[in-house]
Amino acid sequence: MTHSCPKHFKHLVVEPGTKFKLGDIEPREVSFLGDEDKARARLAEDIVEIDKLQDRLYAEGKRALLVILQGTDTSGKDGTIRGVFNTTGPLGVSVTAFKKPSEEELAHDYLWRVHLAAPRRGTIGIFNRSHYEDVLVARVRKLAPKDVIEERYEQINAFEKLLVDNGTVILKFMLHISRKEQGERLQERLDNPDKHWKFNAGDLEDRALWDDFQDAYQTALRRCSTAVAPWHVVPADRKWARNCIIAAIVRDTLETMDPAYPKMPWKPSDFKVD
Amino acid sequence: MTHSCPKHFKHLVVEPGTKFKLGDIEPREVSFLGDEDKARARLAEDIVEIDKLQDRLYAEGKRALLVILQGTDTSGKDGTIRGVFNTTGPLGVSVTAFKKPSEEELAHDYLWRVHLAAPRRGTIGIFNRSHYEDVLVARVRKLAPKDVIEERYEQINAFEKLLVDNGTVILKFMLHISRKEQGERLQERLDNPDKHWKFNAGDLEDRALWDDFQDAYQTALRRCSTAVAPWHVVPADRKWARNCIIAAIVRDTLETMDPAYPKMPWKPSDFKVD
Repeated sequence: MTHSCPKHFKHLVVEPGTKFKLGDIEPREVSFLGDEDKARARLAEDIVEIDKLQDRLYAEGKRALLVILQGTDTSGKDGTIRGVFNTTGPLGVSVTAFKKPSEEELAHDYLWRVHLAAPRRGTIGIFNRSHYEDVLVARVRKLAPKDVIEERYEQINAFEKLLVDNGTVILKFMLHISRKEQGERLQERLDNPDKHWKFNAGDLEDRALWDDFQDAYQTALRRCSTAVAPWHVVPADRKWARNCIIAAIVRDTLETMDPAYPKMPWKPSDFKVD
Repeated sequence: MTHSCPKHFKHLVVEPGTKFKLGDIEPREVSFLGDEDKARARLAEDIVEIDKLQDRLYAEGKRALLVILQGTDTSGKDGTIRGVFNTTGPLGVSVTAFKKPSEEELAHDYLWRVHLAAPRRGTIGIFNRSHYEDVLVARVRKLAPKDVIEERYEQINAFEKLLVDNGTVILKFMLHISRKEQGERLQERLDNPDKHWKFNAGDLEDRALWDDFQDAYQTALRRCSTAVAPWHVVPADRKWARNCIIAAIVRDTLETMDPAYPKMPWKPSDFKVD
């Protein structure tokens, strides 16, 4: 077992093979964190430790950590990256945003571009959206035939197992916000001129399909939460709670991986710096 | 003119077409920054502004900023990335480290892998080492015939002009440390077991060729500091001064680029968030 999760957060892990219900996780229920001050203090500590652990991961050079962020529009994927990973910074963390596939990407299977973006050993890779769009929006918007999408869940599990077997630890987070919270965040993008560029009409079309998307998420979470690459559902209406939860799980996982500075085949006294 | 530099730092810009002498820049002479406290305060402000400016750059989506970091071993390329760009973070900044080329890369011209790593519009790309290695280490270690290397300076200028003409602003920084400072930093890597992995014997071989490398740098700076992509020599013996100088020039350049949040072809009242 390579991934790990602090014990207070175990209820956020989707148990493989169960009839997990997304509706059982309440997007505002974060009392298990204690109060906000306590959560913020914990977050501040965890992001510093993540930075130190990534340095060891890089020095060791044998394994990678892949963090997959999924969630509806405005669920806070960008904010998570800033809040949890800016302390580690761009030297140790690379982000790949999966947008509408290019012609070149569509000319290959849907996992081709994803595999290309797999993180280098020693680094933390973040997927801002991911191959799960191919069983989420693709399912809701019927971008592929039903039987093709049906086959994808197992293909994804096999693909992720390949990565895990070869030294990449995978953490998958669904940023779970309420419909009400999404409404407020979309409205804020309309109210603030500096955020207009973040708004597009398609967001409202997706919002009208809210229940279909929640169903598609539930199916993906049930079928692709595996022992080697489990899904976590993160109550995300409160940004500080979302960041605190994700940072704690990332830190715990890195501590479990326990990367070590390598022992070199020489003694310092072998060298003389003139 | 797309790049820009605060007036107190103008002497660090290598004037195109002049007989610039690297020895004229003293790695510890940073009195033009005022005292250390003042420099650190300025740095703290600048990195916050760089973050805001990158957000506008991303929103605008039309241009990119490429920051090229060169310098001898231990000159502080990694530390610069952390100190200047962690506040912006991995969402807006991508780092490419150019190491020994792979077989695939060697099967192409030397700028092929560099072009592949050019930053996306809206982002800041950092090259941790770059195509300049092909006129630095390649020259000193005679990895290519002399006449082949001679041709590269103009090829590099043409390549960089292509990027600039197509919307990428380029800032090139040589992190200039003294031989004495390098000696202390290499010794520290030997003294601290957690830093052993950063040390390799090749660093001492390069150090023995110090003068040859300084000559190769001087030639590259003279021949490849152009009006569209000038070189800056950064006195880098003091880390806070190095970061302060680079942050100030990056901020000034982004302010001169003055990216704007786009005006959308709709009014907020066109939409109703239900």
